[in-house]
Amino acid sequence: MKISEVRVTFAPGGATAVVPAGELLLGAAVSAGLPLSAPCGGRGRCGKCKVQILKGQCSPVTEQERAVLSPEELASGTRLACQALVETDVEVWAQPEQEVVGKKPLEDHLLEGLQADPVVKHAVVSLSKPSLQDQRSDFQRLCDGLQGVLPCREASPRALWALPRVLRDNDFRVAVTAREGRLLEVTAPGAAQHPLGAAVDIGTTTVVAYLVDLVTGEHIGSGAAHNPQGQHGADVISRTEYAKTAPDGLGRLQREAAGVVNQVLGQALSSYGAGPERLYEITVVGNTCMHHMFLGLDPRYIAEAPYIPVNAACMTVAPGDVGIRMHAEGRVVTLPVIAGYVGADTVGVILATRLVERKRPVLAIDIGTNGEVVLWTGERLLCASCAAGPAFEGAQIEQGMRAAPGAISAVDLPDGDLHITTIANQPPVGICGSGLFDAMAVALEAGFVDMMGRMVGDDALDSLPPSLARRLTGEGPQRRMVLASADEAHTGRPVYLSQRDVREIQLAKGAVRAAVELLLREAELELDDVEEVLLAGAFGNHIRPESALRIGMLPPVEADRVRGVGNAAGAGAMMALISAEQRQLACSIAQTAQHLELAQRPEFQQTFMETMLFMEP
Amino acid sequence: MKISEVRVTFAPGGATAVVPAGELLLGAAVSAGLPLSAPCGGRGRCGKCKVQILKGQCSPVTEQERAVLSPEELASGTRLACQALVETDVEVWAQPEQEVVGKKPLEDHLLEGLQADPVVKHAVVSLSKPSLQDQRSDFQRLCDGLQGVLPCREASPRALWALPRVLRDNDFRVAVTAREGRLLEVTAPGAAQHPLGAAVDIGTTTVVAYLVDLVTGEHIGSGAAHNPQGQHGADVISRTEYAKTAPDGLGRLQREAAGVVNQVLGQALSSYGAGPERLYEITVVGNTCMHHMFLGLDPRYIAEAPYIPVNAACMTVAPGDVGIRMHAEGRVVTLPVIAGYVGADTVGVILATRLVERKRPVLAIDIGTNGEVVLWTGERLLCASCAAGPAFEGAQIEQGMRAAPGAISAVDLPDGDLHITTIANQPPVGICGSGLFDAMAVALEAGFVDMMGRMVGDDALDSLPPSLARRLTGEGPQRRMVLASADEAHTGRPVYLSQRDVREIQLAKGAVRAAVELLLREAELELDDVEEVLLAGAFGNHIRPESALRIGMLPPVEADRVRGVGNAAGAGAMMALISAEQRQLACSIAQTAQHLELAQRPEFQQTFMETMLFMEP
Repeated sequence: MKISEVRVTFAPGGATAVVPAGELLLGAAVSAGLPLSAPCGGRGRCGKCKVQILKGQCSPVTEQERAVLSPEELASGTRLACQALVETDVEVWAQPEQEVVGKKPLEDHLLEGLQADPVVKHAVVSLSKPSLQDQRSDFQRLCDGLQGVLPCREASPRALWALPRVLRDNDFRVAVTAREGRLLEVTAPGAAQHPLGAAVDIGTTTVVAYLVDLVTGEHIGSGAAHNPQGQHGADVISRTEYAKTAPDGLGRLQREAAGVVNQVLGQALSSYGAGPERLYEITVVGNTCMHHMFLGLDPRYIAEAPYIPVNAACMTVAPGDVGIRMHAEGRVVTLPVIAGYVGADTVGVILATRLVERKRPVLAIDIGTNGEVVLWTGERLLCASCAAGPAFEGAQIEQGMRAAPGAISAVDLPDGDLHITTIANQPPVGICGSGLFDAMAVALEAGFVDMMGRMVGDDALDSLPPSLARRLTGEGPQRRMVLASADEAHTGRPVYLSQRDVREIQLAKGAVRAAVELLLREAELELDDVEEVLLAGAFGNHIRPESALRIGMLPPVEADRVRGVGNAAGAGAMMALISAEQRQLACSIAQTAQHLELAQRPEFQQTFMETMLFMEP
Repeated sequence: MKISEVRVTFAPGGATAVVPAGELLLGAAVSAGLPLSAPCGGRGRCGKCKVQILKGQCSPVTEQERAVLSPEELASGTRLACQALVETDVEVWAQPEQEVVGKKPLEDHLLEGLQADPVVKHAVVSLSKPSLQDQRSDFQRLCDGLQGVLPCREASPRALWALPRVLRDNDFRVAVTAREGRLLEVTAPGAAQHPLGAAVDIGTTTVVAYLVDLVTGEHIGSGAAHNPQGQHGADVISRTEYAKTAPDGLGRLQREAAGVVNQVLGQALSSYGAGPERLYEITVVGNTCMHHMFLGLDPRYIAEAPYIPVNAACMTVAPGDVGIRMHAEGRVVTLPVIAGYVGADTVGVILATRLVERKRPVLAIDIGTNGEVVLWTGERLLCASCAAGPAFEGAQIEQGMRAAPGAISAVDLPDGDLHITTIANQPPVGICGSGLFDAMAVALEAGFVDMMGRMVGDDALDSLPPSLARRLTGEGPQRRMVLASADEAHTGRPVYLSQRDVREIQLAKGAVRAAVELLLREAELELDDVEEVLLAGAFGNHIRPESALRIGMLPPVEADRVRGVGNAAGAGAMMALISAEQRQLACSIAQTAQHLELAQRPEFQQTFMETMLFMEP
């Protein structure tokens, strides 16, 4: 170890990183494989990257830390990892996000009935042997033998390097893997191993891979991890800013994206006992910024008007072009994007929900870190993005957190008081997305919040039972609806919904609802024409339709016309992986979809103002 | 420099190599960029790699050297570079082959009238600018702008990495290079540089590159060098043996082939002042072994019955797959081969001579290190290979040498004595191919050699003028026709045609002629049906038709029906480079050509016995 390097050890897990002295604790955590959350992009504002220094020396406490941390926290050595620079060897207590593996299960039900017909194909073939009367080249002989089974017209050099030896060692009976008429690999049939593929969903927050046997179409493994780009901000705008301004910023974001994709692919492969050379194809979805950063395409013109992507079409690139570990002749296929803020993830949702096969109009709403609304009219596909944003993922919510143990995931108002449910029944730590919808719905139901989104004064609480009324505390901007008291909470501090949180929710739900209204208007459809409202995204399966309806994010339809479809983007990537026809459909969808730039429409401001209100149901 | 390394300096040029002690002088010469000839494959038999040690210590003289070198040579420190191991720093006098640059000029006349329509295309385009009303992606905008000019459907990641910046820095007016609908490069139009391509002919002996501007089709530069694989033997069989038996033998041969191709491409590019990133496509021809070794394909099954190539079809490979320095999105295109001993060079000859456009039958004979005979019947294309072999290139001829200064290139019998002509009018050193044909014809004309190929006794010379008769000296296997006496020769030793040489010539010319006869028989054609006999190959332009007819290599046609077409293989590679149509034709030629395995035919032995005879004209 050089003099200028220091060792950072993270309790409780014991993860360790050796970093140059002067490195941020946040960077050291990433090096140690312990991605801490930094939704504000390391600006020291959100306080989500809190850690406690147990031993050793860091740089002095900054002004940002004094603003965010309580005097007790400061006294106990609590710091923001995005502010504290490591000066000596240190030991740090950090409670990183729970491992997210399994948090985005593949929505297998969406794949039912899909005919497996992948682009990469596999066959075993027996050939006649060469003679002076039959001097065909080894490759020609193979192609002739594969006719009607697996048409081949060209070969990769690698496959040809092995071909003569493999043929002769196996008495001219061999296993063949090919893609679109190109021979990729030839092996002994005894050692025949089916080619594998993976569908990858690069979320702003979470990256997931689903591994599949390309011959059987069977889902055989998964991997998941936090997106390490999170250290440069929770939202795509912060990361785009980083790409623009940091030295080699885009290069670093690209390598981080490739690195985490390799990581989740590696998890899935090793759980199945296979190496990366077995992997012949991956399909990738993600929003347009994730798509661009993964491909190394400059995202800066997406971030500024008129919001232009570099390329929107389907791309098929070599693994070396993006740094993915797989078979040397493997291919990385990115699904198309529709616009700067309607990405390949939305195309995945459209595919997975088989939207364009429906006879009657359907709305699909994908609420991830960004929000996209798609309206299939039965003939046209209209799309819009909206800044639903990280609020619903807890990023701009004071007590917001991801769906990890201790997160309040549901709030009820059964009999004169609130009742909370937490993930894994742990003492409450914060509020995750589904809990936030419920808390907001309950706050409205209890009369804590008026139509304009203002938390009411104590005088308005007279008619409520005291057990309920005492939940509303504080004054002005400090006004809060307490979900768990300091005694009940794991942190020793109350968990609450604040006045500021309500404003954030208003902006987010208003944006989604405005998009819905404007798309319906553009299509000249009434709400009654809409057969179903599909909720996709990380918590599409978790939020209660009733709560989404109560807060007015969704238009007033019957709750049974609302259906969660979960991580439909990943399922769409899987469909494009195992079905060449679906892949083709994805490409054509993106070309025919019509994108509406909502903020440009004259009626947008008026609509948005209206949809931000909390109307009585 | 490490203790175990020694410095080898080559006079007169001063080329230097630092090599491990114990390295062969031959290897050191290659390292110093001074490829010595080693036609026998370094077996110490041919004596072609003679050098003189001026200073320093080498390993003791071997038995092979004692057999090949004269006592005077041994006394003066002359050694065989393929036998002597370097033990200390040494200075060596070596006269390597002359630089071959320019020895294989592009046969431009064969390209006349060819329409330039390359696969790689280039255009400059002006685009409208994006707006909120026109949010097409940068790439879509480019594709739309290129419609009707240069259709694009997909893009390389590299091109997209640059695209947004290049568009905006140049006010949306850019220069585009694309191949088959794939965008390869986008640059400022001011800096627009035409994409370049090169045709490469990998000969067993010599490797040549012809550089071309892919927009104008203009030939703008050349490069040439010895094939460094020569250190493993002059012929493809020795090299295939090396590939089979030496550790990493095939890998080494592949890297040597790629290395010399990079070298000749580099010469051509730097003579034009361009870097390798300007090079978008190369087309490669060579015999089947050169083709396989360049591509890294195992040549061993070509060498043994039933002589099966790994792949015969056209291949298009990425530069990284074969180690060629060019644009990252460039492509290496190998022309197809027809059989194990009828290679892509023959396909090049067929293309360049426009053989399949002829109405009447034509014979094309390519005499390089191997021999190929092609008969176009007007409908069918019949091909055969024959072991014409290195004899005509001087390899198995006692005084044989390449066409370098001092080589006897012509022999006449004007008036009672021989008259020799040497290249560059230098004192005679040895005999090159065209001189060999003449010497053999003269030997027959003078009555020195009988029908069976036996040099006659002194009693048969009585009727000759003494000036001529004294040319035949020695007895039995030492019988020789002296072309230059020891006094006349540069080496101080006579230059002659020996009895053994005559036997080699008999075998070679008999093989070519047998192929011609058997092809005509297969096609059921008479000699009178043949409109023309084309001679391709390194000395196709240099040998006198009369001599080739006199020795009976060619069937008895009028001399004016014989035409030299020179390095037609290289011209064919050039045609496939600048014309997509010609490239397509090359691929289909190889598929429809019919290859005859002559040695398998029952009539072969009888025919060969007959064609080895020297018949009166």
